[in-house]
Amino acid sequence: MTDDEPAVGDDPGPPPRRDVVDNAELALLLEVTGTPKPGNVDRNHDYDDLRFEHFMAGSVGSRHGLELAAGDARLGRAFERAVGGMSQQTAGNTQFGALLLLVPLVRAAASGELTGSRAAACARETTVADAADFYRSFEHVDVAVDDPPDGLEPLDVQRGAEAIPVLAERELTLWDVMEQSASVDGVAAEWVAEFERTMWASERLLDLEGTVPARVARVFLELLAEEPDTFVVKQHDQQTAERASAQAREALEGESDPWRLADEFVAEGLNPGTTADLTAGALFVALERGLDV
Amino acid sequence: MTDDEPAVGDDPGPPPRRDVVDNAELALLLEVTGTPKPGNVDRNHDYDDLRFEHFMAGSVGSRHGLELAAGDARLGRAFERAVGGMSQQTAGNTQFGALLLLVPLVRAAASGELTGSRAAACARETTVADAADFYRSFEHVDVAVDDPPDGLEPLDVQRGAEAIPVLAERELTLWDVMEQSASVDGVAAEWVAEFERTMWASERLLDLEGTVPARVARVFLELLAEEPDTFVVKQHDQQTAERASAQAREALEGESDPWRLADEFVAEGLNPGTTADLTAGALFVALERGLDV
Repeated sequence: MTDDEPAVGDDPGPPPRRDVVDNAELALLLEVTGTPKPGNVDRNHDYDDLRFEHFMAGSVGSRHGLELAAGDARLGRAFERAVGGMSQQTAGNTQFGALLLLVPLVRAAASGELTGSRAAACARETTVADAADFYRSFEHVDVAVDDPPDGLEPLDVQRGAEAIPVLAERELTLWDVMEQSASVDGVAAEWVAEFERTMWASERLLDLEGTVPARVARVFLELLAEEPDTFVVKQHDQQTAERASAQAREALEGESDPWRLADEFVAEGLNPGTTADLTAGALFVALERGLDV
Repeated sequence: MTDDEPAVGDDPGPPPRRDVVDNAELALLLEVTGTPKPGNVDRNHDYDDLRFEHFMAGSVGSRHGLELAAGDARLGRAFERAVGGMSQQTAGNTQFGALLLLVPLVRAAASGELTGSRAAACARETTVADAADFYRSFEHVDVAVDDPPDGLEPLDVQRGAEAIPVLAERELTLWDVMEQSASVDGVAAEWVAEFERTMWASERLLDLEGTVPARVARVFLELLAEEPDTFVVKQHDQQTAERASAQAREALEGESDPWRLADEFVAEGLNPGTTADLTAGALFVALERGLDV
């Protein structure tokens, strides 16, 4: 208590509103709360070794990196710290792709208007050091990736920090790395396409009716129906990913039950994780634009 | 990038670990993740107007107040800010009691060894200004309370900030207010009893086997079986609360199914919220003491 303060304390003023970092963290939490999101861990579905509680801890752990993203740290460093903090739970990777999508969006929101083009502009400003941090972040967790195409073996992300000298030699920025990955990775594709699908999905979240988790489940299905999930392609193959999208379309059209689809996908280990990442990014944008919980 | 930093950035060092505030927030998230916690909102149960997503937003919103609790703000102010932030969702009160329990525990953890006696020592240092902030916090949300006993009407918490002159006149600290409420409020009773049940429950969480949500559900039932829930007393009556505890004992002894009990309690609107508050406090202590998620 200061000398000037009355014995009963001063008036605290209006309650604290959620800031950009709060909304990014809440987006991660609401993504996994949405149900049924067929094949994902969600409020009603777990895998044996990847469960709902790991996503809770991953969301909280990401926070320190998200704070860097809302400040003036390099985006690569913010991402690396977010992934490092996220990994402080026993299941390993929970939200790697979601964080890769969130970091430029958080930077855009914290520094001005949150638009896809502003987020992409932040992404384009990344440097070789950011690319190095991206590679360092693979040291924290196992992330499902395909083997690199011929000639790109030295840049295989599975090499982690060992690949950094190659990045430096070729002067590759994080933006360059994302451009190279855009054809096989749905999150990298979003960077390059100025977050087009993320922005579209955020508008859907705002326009739909019903509870937030119900809207999340709907938008997840719509995204999956629209494009094969690149994480499913990596873990299985293109054909499986296309079948999953066709099944999502059937569920949207009322020809099948999304709850049954959820059970089937979990049983097959068919987890459209990139679609979940886009859903988390869209939730962040929607929360920033006034989505009420 | 500083001038001294190499083009590929410096080594980021080990990943960030969860700090005290992170663990307090995660405790709130894991409390509501534990299931079945009969009568509570949990991973598998909602009320129409009080749902899982409101607890997600409440947990994130509490964070700024929890940061004050981990710093050197007055405890009453930390609590008031936590409640104000928590209330930034459409359902109103989600974690008022849990935050009242957490604030002195967070202060103890952030300033030295986390023991019940140290947390109670922090609580005993509260002032009239802290009591005033406690009353101010009732302006943010509707909290279920009984009418005050004869003679204490001027201190009815439902008066909110209007009661502050009476606090000042009677020189009541927040500790005094908790002492006066200890016989009818399980969280106030914990303050006065040096967090005895919270500490016991934290040890149970550490000692039990199985996933964290399963341990949480077990410890919730054990706490409920042991003592009638004061929130149930306030919303219903003593007899109902004693029956709920008897039913919890039956479930623990395998004579009934806790999942069925959860459905019954939700249908009756019988929500042992104070037992949930204690569970959240216990989770915080257990996380600080090394509970792995």
